[in-house]
Amino acid sequence: MSSNLQKYLPILDWGRQYNKTAFSNDMIAALIVTIMLIPQSLAYALLAGLPPEAGLYASIAPIILYAIFGTSRALAVGPVAVISLMTAATLGNIMDQGTMGYAIAALTLAFLSGVILVAMGVFRLGFLANFLSHPVIAGFITASGVIIAASQLKHILGINASGHNLLELVISLWEHLPETNWATLIIGASATGFLFWVRKGMKPMLRARGMSTSAADVATKAGPVAAVVATTVAVWLFNLSDKGVKIVGDVPQSLPPLTMPDMSFDLISLLFVPALLISIIGFVESISVAQTLAAKKRQRIDPDQELIGLGAANLGAAFTGGFPVTGGFSRSVVNFDAGAQTPAAGAFTAIGLTIAAVALTPLIFFLPKATLAATIIVAVLSLVDFSILKRSWGYSKADFFAVLATILLTLSMGVEVGVTAGVVLSIFLHLYKTTKPHIAEVGLVPGSQHFRNIKRHDVQTLPHVLSLRIDESLYFANAKYLEDCIYDRVATDTPIKHVVLMCSAVNEVDLSALESLEAINERLDAMGVKFHFSEIKGPVMDRLNREHFLSELTGQVFLSQYDAFTALKSNM
Amino acid sequence: MSSNLQKYLPILDWGRQYNKTAFSNDMIAALIVTIMLIPQSLAYALLAGLPPEAGLYASIAPIILYAIFGTSRALAVGPVAVISLMTAATLGNIMDQGTMGYAIAALTLAFLSGVILVAMGVFRLGFLANFLSHPVIAGFITASGVIIAASQLKHILGINASGHNLLELVISLWEHLPETNWATLIIGASATGFLFWVRKGMKPMLRARGMSTSAADVATKAGPVAAVVATTVAVWLFNLSDKGVKIVGDVPQSLPPLTMPDMSFDLISLLFVPALLISIIGFVESISVAQTLAAKKRQRIDPDQELIGLGAANLGAAFTGGFPVTGGFSRSVVNFDAGAQTPAAGAFTAIGLTIAAVALTPLIFFLPKATLAATIIVAVLSLVDFSILKRSWGYSKADFFAVLATILLTLSMGVEVGVTAGVVLSIFLHLYKTTKPHIAEVGLVPGSQHFRNIKRHDVQTLPHVLSLRIDESLYFANAKYLEDCIYDRVATDTPIKHVVLMCSAVNEVDLSALESLEAINERLDAMGVKFHFSEIKGPVMDRLNREHFLSELTGQVFLSQYDAFTALKSNM
Repeated sequence: MSSNLQKYLPILDWGRQYNKTAFSNDMIAALIVTIMLIPQSLAYALLAGLPPEAGLYASIAPIILYAIFGTSRALAVGPVAVISLMTAATLGNIMDQGTMGYAIAALTLAFLSGVILVAMGVFRLGFLANFLSHPVIAGFITASGVIIAASQLKHILGINASGHNLLELVISLWEHLPETNWATLIIGASATGFLFWVRKGMKPMLRARGMSTSAADVATKAGPVAAVVATTVAVWLFNLSDKGVKIVGDVPQSLPPLTMPDMSFDLISLLFVPALLISIIGFVESISVAQTLAAKKRQRIDPDQELIGLGAANLGAAFTGGFPVTGGFSRSVVNFDAGAQTPAAGAFTAIGLTIAAVALTPLIFFLPKATLAATIIVAVLSLVDFSILKRSWGYSKADFFAVLATILLTLSMGVEVGVTAGVVLSIFLHLYKTTKPHIAEVGLVPGSQHFRNIKRHDVQTLPHVLSLRIDESLYFANAKYLEDCIYDRVATDTPIKHVVLMCSAVNEVDLSALESLEAINERLDAMGVKFHFSEIKGPVMDRLNREHFLSELTGQVFLSQYDAFTALKSNM
Repeated sequence: MSSNLQKYLPILDWGRQYNKTAFSNDMIAALIVTIMLIPQSLAYALLAGLPPEAGLYASIAPIILYAIFGTSRALAVGPVAVISLMTAATLGNIMDQGTMGYAIAALTLAFLSGVILVAMGVFRLGFLANFLSHPVIAGFITASGVIIAASQLKHILGINASGHNLLELVISLWEHLPETNWATLIIGASATGFLFWVRKGMKPMLRARGMSTSAADVATKAGPVAAVVATTVAVWLFNLSDKGVKIVGDVPQSLPPLTMPDMSFDLISLLFVPALLISIIGFVESISVAQTLAAKKRQRIDPDQELIGLGAANLGAAFTGGFPVTGGFSRSVVNFDAGAQTPAAGAFTAIGLTIAAVALTPLIFFLPKATLAATIIVAVLSLVDFSILKRSWGYSKADFFAVLATILLTLSMGVEVGVTAGVVLSIFLHLYKTTKPHIAEVGLVPGSQHFRNIKRHDVQTLPHVLSLRIDESLYFANAKYLEDCIYDRVATDTPIKHVVLMCSAVNEVDLSALESLEAINERLDAMGVKFHFSEIKGPVMDRLNREHFLSELTGQVFLSQYDAFTALKSNM
């Protein structure tokens, strides 16, 4: 078997070493994850504006395909909150929820997302995800969490409300508040309260009562199932659906259906950009989960192969009645903590969910939508964390403005505008910083061969030698600035006979910067000043050697700034 | 008088020192420039698709306003080839040439350009022009020169031809070639040949015949006027306009008229982006001319004030029947060489052109358009220089691809697409290079305190210390890459107990990179490896001190890599 095939099919690697211990560990993890995923899958389908069974379907084929192509051993793939929200936001602009067209457009979105991810993996474009800075991602997730929670409040209150952004949504909720259905509110509020308590208070209580840690863990994970069972039974017993409590109702008992996305050019051109954003955001979320878990066991994640794995999962979702999926944080952590050893755990989870889809759906006929909304609210509020604003304010104003813009624009203009603005702004601010680089005049630290900024350290200098350290690569955006700085400094200081550019921080000199250096060399020559370099790095030196510049240089190139200092000391 | 006022009105600076010598020098320069500008202004109006007098008007008020607000003492402002081409390309998309709406839209374009330039100056946004890299500008100017020359061929041939890009234009010329008007072609071809000879052959000949350099210079500048006079007389004498030679015809005898741009929202939103591009390209062209000339006399140019000067010039053009203007290369060089000492030379030129507009326009009734086209062709072909392709190929592939894309897209898709693609591509390629930075393992150069790449130099290393020099600022786009590199290197080399990150080239650590460093610190700690830093720069250190990172660091921060080497030598 060629090692190349093994690279593209990681299953060939772990599959051959599979044994009984791994099997039993994977089975236990799968059981726990399945119990947790049933209500979560139904809830995220609701969030995406799709019928509940779509959530189950989106968890089955994608999990199996990821198990074959993915490199993480613990990642659990399926619907996640932010991607479901982005799906709803995209489709809501072009279709009405609940229509056939809407569900088919969701397939198309998953299909496009799959194609984009696979293409990015094959062309090794995973680095594109790096342009989403950590603060922008944190801001985006926080703002999305707020929007998601707000969008679910209508289910808790049993009212109709809608809006394209947070403000519209809040106003609409306020207007419809008098129509609150009290039975729904009681169910929704108790489910929400119960689930918060399960997250925060139940585990310490069980431990205090003498339950073992692992048993308490399992009990905690079963919390949402308990809420589902209790509220479903309550609705059935007290006939609450007649009192206006909205229920899930008929869900087909079926294997995931074979479906065909709509491949019309019009729809594809409408959905391409949203699909690209969904792919990149989904990839960033997934890879960070995968890498965190892999590091704990000293395993490696291959980002480009991950793209292929996630792409395959989305293609699977597109042809089996699902919607866009990615690796989810909470379910992956549960899978990892429950002891999943290989991607086979995912396959067993898929079997569990298939059984649920075929056999258990009649049991959720009376499941109130308010309970699903409570599940979503409790899950996403743990994502909301505004502390990134405080942290970035203290550390770096550029990061702060990028995250602030991301949060405000996501809340006011929606997820696509928000994340795009965050990316563009981070890139612009980064470039802006490099246009006016820090330029330090340096001197010798006494008793060493080391040179530091004369403004920060007590150092030796020579009156006829100006030593400047440029703290940035030289390229088109700052070439002119360097010229201006040198002319300004030399013009006002007549004893200067030598200018030494210390290039320890210059990682690149592009053609624009080379032309500026040529201009500086000529103009300093006209003023009787020689132009030298020190500490030019290997790759930069290689490039300069391709041009005539060094032979036209009036001064010399020194290996170190100390060599320059020594050589020019007596050269007045 | 406040010095602040003086800053915004440079005329207050040089105006007070104005004397008789400066006056007579300025007068001579103005005379030479006026002679040169008359045919050039008419020709560029033709290129922009406007009546010939618009070229004269665009040279009068703008010159005076620049003299008041601009900082260059030799820059001559008026219509230039590339900006006239961009004007024609923009307006051609929305209006028909020769209509009143077209001329009014040209005023609006100049108005918007003026507002944008003034705003950029007031908000000190001149650095934005730095994002046009030298190779992109060179490629853009070259491609524009080719398009301009091709667009004028129809006037030389006396045929109709049109097209939105070079290919369409060439096909259209070919199709209409059989309609060539021979009288026009004879005039056009002889004017072109004569003007080339004036540029290349006349001056050496005159010098060889014993004429003084300065007299030969003046004679050279008068060449285009000679061509204008000779061909006008020929058309008049031989009644060539009856034989199909197109002439300039009636030009009003008038002072520059007071005009009002169309300020309708629809037109402004159509023209805003083109006006922005015209402003930035015009500013880049103008500032580079101004700085080249200023450097020769050790004068300073203030880029932000230049924006205000050029903005005022464009506003002047908008209200006096002109079109977008900027500082032109050839006329400024002529002005400088002719001895212009202050911006007053520009004001005197304006007076000369006003006299021409009022008194001389009847004389150009029989001026053939072919002569103006010849003037343009000879002027722009000196801008065409494909050597930038060869140079950038040899020096840097990234620069090469940026310039190639700019040239090909400008020729095939037009000036706006071409220059935008060039800018976006240069930025993307620059960012791409920084996403996978050069990381060198370094060792001590024997007998020094200097550290260099172990692959390039014969250096000393310690088996239990890994010293890595990162040749790039650490920011969101490369934070992940650094993590991956360190894990890969440490995981395969068990004797390593210390990792030292040499930060002499790290000019920034943003919040994303800080989070990556925290993750590296934690994970190395789990492996029993300590994480150290050396040569962190002042500004970076200041920022790191704002966070807890340094107190949580398992290792130390050393002033120099040599200190780290010495301290860790015995610390196994």
